[in-house]
Amino acid sequence: MSTSSHMYPMSSGHDQHSYIHNSSYQKAAISSAVEKTRRCIFEKLDLQLSSDFGTFRIADFGCSIGPNTFHVAQSIIDTVKSKRLEESTENSLVPLEFQVFFNDQPTNDFNTLFRTQPLSPEREYFSVGVPGSFYGRVLPRNSIHIGHTSYTTHWLSKVPDNVCDKKSMAWNKNYIQCNNLLEEVTKAYKVQFIKDMEIFLDARAEELVPGGLMIVIGECLPDGVSLYETWQGYVMDTIGDCLMDMAKSVR
Amino acid sequence: MSTSSHMYPMSSGHDQHSYIHNSSYQKAAISSAVEKTRRCIFEKLDLQLSSDFGTFRIADFGCSIGPNTFHVAQSIIDTVKSKRLEESTENSLVPLEFQVFFNDQPTNDFNTLFRTQPLSPEREYFSVGVPGSFYGRVLPRNSIHIGHTSYTTHWLSKVPDNVCDKKSMAWNKNYIQCNNLLEEVTKAYKVQFIKDMEIFLDARAEELVPGGLMIVIGECLPDGVSLYETWQGYVMDTIGDCLMDMAKSVR
Repeated sequence: MSTSSHMYPMSSGHDQHSYIHNSSYQKAAISSAVEKTRRCIFEKLDLQLSSDFGTFRIADFGCSIGPNTFHVAQSIIDTVKSKRLEESTENSLVPLEFQVFFNDQPTNDFNTLFRTQPLSPEREYFSVGVPGSFYGRVLPRNSIHIGHTSYTTHWLSKVPDNVCDKKSMAWNKNYIQCNNLLEEVTKAYKVQFIKDMEIFLDARAEELVPGGLMIVIGECLPDGVSLYETWQGYVMDTIGDCLMDMAKSVR
Repeated sequence: MSTSSHMYPMSSGHDQHSYIHNSSYQKAAISSAVEKTRRCIFEKLDLQLSSDFGTFRIADFGCSIGPNTFHVAQSIIDTVKSKRLEESTENSLVPLEFQVFFNDQPTNDFNTLFRTQPLSPEREYFSVGVPGSFYGRVLPRNSIHIGHTSYTTHWLSKVPDNVCDKKSMAWNKNYIQCNNLLEEVTKAYKVQFIKDMEIFLDARAEELVPGGLMIVIGECLPDGVSLYETWQGYVMDTIGDCLMDMAKSVR
């Protein structure tokens, strides 16, 4: 129930600057993982988990708004239904209902999320919004069968304090991101990431039913590759340079 | 999962015209029923219902925004906890978690609802928003232990068609409400209310666990009393007269 993390949700509404119209990159990432997600559900999910109660619960942590989270939900449901059909036993005769928990920070634009969701019968699930930082518990114990999160955990709960402290060895002086050029900065971000991921995973471990699945999608760097060497890092450093120049020009 | 009913949610935001600042009447109604609600939970709720799963689920149907729905949720939780303490057995040793489902139409201002909710630790429950008309299923089968709705079911799913039809016997010519002055109008509203309440109760019957409680609070008229004879009816008819005069003056 923690709400202590800093809140910078994705851009709200559905105008040209909104996340809805600026999340095709994230969509591509999700699409590229669809087959792997599908295989993982087919191989690892125990359908017995849900058969007792008749409700299959899915959560998308850090769902934001826009069509991506709806595609994810529908894709997971389609896979669970296929698997169920394939493994049909007596249990499968109990009609299964799906409930999808869309989680994001309380400042996320849930109004737009709710008003742009697919209508039934296209939407085959009961839709629910869960306001709260995923760096903490947001759902009851043992309540979710499949958890999903995509391109979210790089948003740390906060910028590490010493990165903004001019007197610290970890001051990130000329940069707006952790591009791995300054060792102390990299270390500070790493410490924060380890702390945050531990909280994230501990919370999900409680929220998922025993034997449930947690799907985590995101961008990683191979060992030995620094962010400033990649195109993503390069783009951000260039934007950072521009911002620095702008800041200097008004001094 | 129906979204077919007409959508006129309470006034959004939290300025002077918002529901948040114009719902003290509704608050008084809820407060006046607190003791009865409490007694009902103490007498009728079977705590065994929830002990297996460790999560106690409460839903407020037609929650709107503002403090009233939070008071209701906390008051129900306090009562369940008191009852549990009083009847403490081995089952009570399992720590119970509470999850509250705040339901209203998709056009309700969930953003304000989520941003104005009490923070933990004051808020002792996991908070969830459920977008959808309560004239239809909005939650999975057997998922709610206590359902609550207050001053909501007088909002029908729609104005009966014939009430707006100039050629119909049930045309409500000079009035903006069903004040019981025209028999055919009263009948048309009654037919719609019976239809709506049946859908409402059928949906809740599926959503509540067997043995769960459904608390319905609202305004009724004693048999033989017509709405136009009451102060509520009188006020609305006066407003109706003003609107009629305004409409005539621009003809």
